[in-house]
Amino acid sequence: MENLRIPGPTPCPPEVLQAMARPMINHRGPEFAKILFNVTDMLKQLFQTKTDVYILTGSGTGGLEAAVVNTLSPGDKVLSVSIGFFGDRFGEIAHIYGAEVTSLTFEPGKAANPGEIGKALKADPKIKAVLVTHNETSTGVTNDLEAISKVVRESGKLFLVDAISSLGSIPLPVDEWGCDVAVTASQKGWMVPPGLAMVNVSPKAWQAYASARMPRNYWDFGKAKSYLEKGQTPWTPAVSIFFALEVALAMMLKEGLTNIFARHARVGKAARDGVKSLGLSVFADERYASNTVTSVATPPTVDTKKLLKLMREEHKVVLAGGQGALEGKMFRIGHLGLVTEGDIKAVISALKVALPQAGFTPK
Amino acid sequence: MENLRIPGPTPCPPEVLQAMARPMINHRGPEFAKILFNVTDMLKQLFQTKTDVYILTGSGTGGLEAAVVNTLSPGDKVLSVSIGFFGDRFGEIAHIYGAEVTSLTFEPGKAANPGEIGKALKADPKIKAVLVTHNETSTGVTNDLEAISKVVRESGKLFLVDAISSLGSIPLPVDEWGCDVAVTASQKGWMVPPGLAMVNVSPKAWQAYASARMPRNYWDFGKAKSYLEKGQTPWTPAVSIFFALEVALAMMLKEGLTNIFARHARVGKAARDGVKSLGLSVFADERYASNTVTSVATPPTVDTKKLLKLMREEHKVVLAGGQGALEGKMFRIGHLGLVTEGDIKAVISALKVALPQAGFTPK
Repeated sequence: MENLRIPGPTPCPPEVLQAMARPMINHRGPEFAKILFNVTDMLKQLFQTKTDVYILTGSGTGGLEAAVVNTLSPGDKVLSVSIGFFGDRFGEIAHIYGAEVTSLTFEPGKAANPGEIGKALKADPKIKAVLVTHNETSTGVTNDLEAISKVVRESGKLFLVDAISSLGSIPLPVDEWGCDVAVTASQKGWMVPPGLAMVNVSPKAWQAYASARMPRNYWDFGKAKSYLEKGQTPWTPAVSIFFALEVALAMMLKEGLTNIFARHARVGKAARDGVKSLGLSVFADERYASNTVTSVATPPTVDTKKLLKLMREEHKVVLAGGQGALEGKMFRIGHLGLVTEGDIKAVISALKVALPQAGFTPK
Repeated sequence: MENLRIPGPTPCPPEVLQAMARPMINHRGPEFAKILFNVTDMLKQLFQTKTDVYILTGSGTGGLEAAVVNTLSPGDKVLSVSIGFFGDRFGEIAHIYGAEVTSLTFEPGKAANPGEIGKALKADPKIKAVLVTHNETSTGVTNDLEAISKVVRESGKLFLVDAISSLGSIPLPVDEWGCDVAVTASQKGWMVPPGLAMVNVSPKAWQAYASARMPRNYWDFGKAKSYLEKGQTPWTPAVSIFFALEVALAMMLKEGLTNIFARHARVGKAARDGVKSLGLSVFADERYASNTVTSVATPPTVDTKKLLKLMREEHKVVLAGGQGALEGKMFRIGHLGLVTEGDIKAVISALKVALPQAGFTPK
């Protein structure tokens, strides 16, 4: 089997995969209701939230779209804080639905500066919401969301957080940090195949919902809420992925959040140390380097595409390339969800062999 | 195991369920690209279309939303032909996104009258699109889509079809009947767990797309098109359900569309004959009774909820209740996808025992 080391989809434990193969059931019957209630309850614990949590059938991007269309109206001003590809995407969604988007962009590899966010909010008091990526998967940078949350909460703005590749893997106490909507997705740290987005909705987000006028149907939180009361989802859900999620969340609660976070911290450090031991550089500002994905700057002599192909075909290690403007300039090692230090050692050992074949000449 | 006889999710063959348990792969790698191309090609054959086909991660309702937002602008006039719950939903989606919706509604249990659709189109030449449900799952009625398609094509309007519970089970030659967008979903006749919507997009739909101004991102056909060119989807797809779909579509091509349609016709007749043999009435106008789902009018003395519970708990047969205003007034037997006459016989035998326990006194 391959060592799938991309930042999602992530490998799934055998028990989780086995749950995927369960026969279909009625999504409007008592068995599904029991699973839905149980999964929602477990997610609340892992989100560290007492606010509402909903599970939507779709990708993480669908969850971001839900965060936008449920809380905003066309013409609303939003501050979109971006440190990369996924930050840009979040702002673009708000723009598509008619928000007036002010972009606050930081250089690829850097984290967002909370002070500058505060300045931008003071400069335009009409801003209604702040969009922030917790962990930027495209550059391997984790924003200091706690510091950012303080600035945003002081301003009283709505705080919409892309937590797709952070929640459940690295610390993000959703209520303590005042996330009005935090979005994640099943194929990340949750060790489940892709197909479900998970979101929390704070009382303040519900207030915004009441007057938000962007069109919404499929992603409508109000519909999710009224159906959840009877143990259902408004539209036919991806039932098999709920089966898998129930198994994975129980495993996560058994391991415990503290242990999960510590494991990701160890594994992240092992990845960065390993990369440096090969004579390569971590692309991200190391003070903010992510513990779920490590970005590696491709040395000038190395052909990234060839390297990834060699790794995949000869070493059964699947890595990710760069996204958008960073294609060819970096590669990424995913280490979230089902991952051990041994998995990372295997990646580093394989890179040691493949790098010279792809043109690398260490200094 | 239960005899799951609801109109979706439908039972899945063991090979399909086993495919769901395959380990995760990179959704932007060569292995997924191969599956995506293969599945798209097989779907085109089963849709009987040479137009584009896309697979979207979401439910059938997501597919209906995609049909609307990709082809229409706020203020566009549309004719929404409804013969039930799902017809109403399609029109409601268009309304939510700002279309000016004229509803042409027919009595529950009846089919739409093509002549009246023609009249409505002549009455308002500004109508741009017609929304029609091929098979209304809530009442068990199949519209005469061929006749309707003639009227719509003569008018030159855009033809958007909810084919969720018909495509792949009963005859619907997408190109021959000029469907500009036909929408279906994995958990129906395709014998695959829920989580994927499948749509075709005709050249005329692409023309409409070019000037359509409803906001679109997650469901954007243009994004699906540009990513499909490189063997990808714009957002992380529900990979496992693609694994399953590849297996199921190969099985369907092996059986052949003609045989599949004939089997559904036989099974549909067996369901209606069985229902009548018990002294019950088919709710649908029998001239248009569906071969994928049979609606049964609950006799006045019978408690529908109790009947469904008895069927589920004592006979392991899962049936569906009525939806919306029809709750308590009918129950439904799903017979699409993986279904034989034997499965229907088992349902009828169980009903024979359960009906008197739920208050039925045959005349």
